[in-house]
Amino acid sequence: MNQEKIQELKHWMRKENVDVTYITNPNTIAYLSGFTSDPHERVLALFLSTSHDPFLFTPALEAETARQSSWPFDVVGYLDTENPWQVIAHEINNRYGQPQQLAIEKATFTLDRFEQLQPFFASTDFSKDVTPIIQRMQLCKTSQEIDILIEAGQWADFAFETGFAAIKDGATEEEIAAEIEYRLKRKGVAHMSFDTTVLVGPHAASPHGAPNKTLVQKNELVLFDLGVVWKGYCSDATRTVAYKEPTAFQKEVYSIVLEAQLAAQAAVKPGVTAGQLDKIARDIIESYGYGDAFNHRLGHGIGTSVHEYPSLVAGNDLVIEEGMCFSIEPGIYLPNQVGVRIEDCVYVTKDGSQPLTHTSKELLIID
Amino acid sequence: MNQEKIQELKHWMRKENVDVTYITNPNTIAYLSGFTSDPHERVLALFLSTSHDPFLFTPALEAETARQSSWPFDVVGYLDTENPWQVIAHEINNRYGQPQQLAIEKATFTLDRFEQLQPFFASTDFSKDVTPIIQRMQLCKTSQEIDILIEAGQWADFAFETGFAAIKDGATEEEIAAEIEYRLKRKGVAHMSFDTTVLVGPHAASPHGAPNKTLVQKNELVLFDLGVVWKGYCSDATRTVAYKEPTAFQKEVYSIVLEAQLAAQAAVKPGVTAGQLDKIARDIIESYGYGDAFNHRLGHGIGTSVHEYPSLVAGNDLVIEEGMCFSIEPGIYLPNQVGVRIEDCVYVTKDGSQPLTHTSKELLIID
Repeated sequence: MNQEKIQELKHWMRKENVDVTYITNPNTIAYLSGFTSDPHERVLALFLSTSHDPFLFTPALEAETARQSSWPFDVVGYLDTENPWQVIAHEINNRYGQPQQLAIEKATFTLDRFEQLQPFFASTDFSKDVTPIIQRMQLCKTSQEIDILIEAGQWADFAFETGFAAIKDGATEEEIAAEIEYRLKRKGVAHMSFDTTVLVGPHAASPHGAPNKTLVQKNELVLFDLGVVWKGYCSDATRTVAYKEPTAFQKEVYSIVLEAQLAAQAAVKPGVTAGQLDKIARDIIESYGYGDAFNHRLGHGIGTSVHEYPSLVAGNDLVIEEGMCFSIEPGIYLPNQVGVRIEDCVYVTKDGSQPLTHTSKELLIID
Repeated sequence: MNQEKIQELKHWMRKENVDVTYITNPNTIAYLSGFTSDPHERVLALFLSTSHDPFLFTPALEAETARQSSWPFDVVGYLDTENPWQVIAHEINNRYGQPQQLAIEKATFTLDRFEQLQPFFASTDFSKDVTPIIQRMQLCKTSQEIDILIEAGQWADFAFETGFAAIKDGATEEEIAAEIEYRLKRKGVAHMSFDTTVLVGPHAASPHGAPNKTLVQKNELVLFDLGVVWKGYCSDATRTVAYKEPTAFQKEVYSIVLEAQLAAQAAVKPGVTAGQLDKIARDIIESYGYGDAFNHRLGHGIGTSVHEYPSLVAGNDLVIEEGMCFSIEPGIYLPNQVGVRIEDCVYVTKDGSQPLTHTSKELLIID
């Protein structure tokens, strides 16, 4: 259980006159309660009150597991034959009384569920959204969280090593991606944070390319974008390597992206804004005439989700603080020619930053 | 594009005086438009009108791919720097005029998105939910859909073959699961329909067990529950096999589950109800005294989602029709002793059913 963050939420609730907060996102529930579960179509929830103890609400099949977890408060299970909204209303009214203000996570609460819940709370005000509060809360990671993110990054480094070793004549993109995930799974890393991307040559220039039967080619670049989920936290990193000697043009594009990546990463420290970091990388790429070929933001926050706040995008005045974790991932994509992206996630320290992945960013030529 | 289903939706819209329908679920969008995409945090939508042509709404990065897909109507892209709700409102008002009734998919529409959309349509009625109509529409599969489900089932059979071959002394559950997914990925099956389950001995008795470092054991059963996503459609099947000679007790439990599975599967035909099928399997398991150990419903529908309608559960009076596709998966779970489940998905024919997987259900003893 994350006692500190629960207190922080309660503090917000008191300030906003919120009696009860209903957490719906399984990631947030895991973050606050320590209990991880995917409820699929069933209902999983965490209820917080300013005046009484919180409780977890789970499908009956999961209730025993939740009780055996580190969660120290009540767990209420419901059967498939029960109406979960009725059980929730009964529990809330019994424990806390009819709330005047019930805050919900509006970014994950669906309309059909809200329409089933709301009639049980006819006089309750549901206008408050707890999503932005949770997002703000997760923006700066604790040292315990950073320790796990470092481990998740080590698995990404292992994945690169595996992927680079699988590059050879006759290998397809999807075979190399399969090899990476296989080696990780055998070691107990059950989930990737997104589908492993391996793209050869011009295929790396397509914005949402997915590995297919394209063969590794001599004198072509190979782009790897990958990450794992480890103890509930994600990694995400990109490397672009060459198979046999690259062309002068490929080397030139690579060196521009690397210069932009290193410059932006070196500029990370408390006080700089998210938009300034994006501009540092973009200015460099633009100065070489490839501005239009860098067609996405510089980066995104990372934590229990692979994409979270902050967003490193032009115009975002958010001030970077110690403990924030995010990607720095400039790229140049020239259709039918070449695609290069280099990405590390970093965590912000008192006066700079540290990368979460350590695979070399000098252009690796695989022979 | 699924012209027939779009006509069916428009027919419903006319009957209910719905001017515009807003489809949000990427699965439904793929089902109706033929365009498959995961928008992550961005907005993807399909708009249907009773009086004008439909249009797709996608992130700008995806718009070109959507235009090159088989979708014959307009594609509207929006930039990261635009407010997607404003663009949607502009497009709808321009193309269709301000709608009186705008139906939405309430099971996938989140509250925060609704609160951003709604102010642009102050006088529009949003009470109609299109989710149940879509669910009803997807209940009976066309012969083209069944052909793809058959292929998805063949991949599940291939997965069983791979998994059975990986059973040997010293192999762990997670290694066998990794092997199955690896072999599929190398063949271009990029996604499983859920995490591959391999559970040894008593571990198979835990309701939501996941593969871990448990070793294959002689004279123990091994439960495999798996499925793939193939051309947008899912497979799902379970086999329980023995490593070396099983005990008499394991054989007895297996034979009861098999009897229940075969009886329920044999009873599938148009006219029987979902609840009756559940009862046929449950009665058999109860007659042997293991009723409490069969602690879940008999089965669930399958299609573009791995769990959809119908639900084969006690009390469901839904009448089975030709073209429905669902699982028949009784099980007996005795904590700390044994877990057995046997599952085929079937499609309903004019006068019976056909299984989508063909791996033998006689108890396989691996030596």
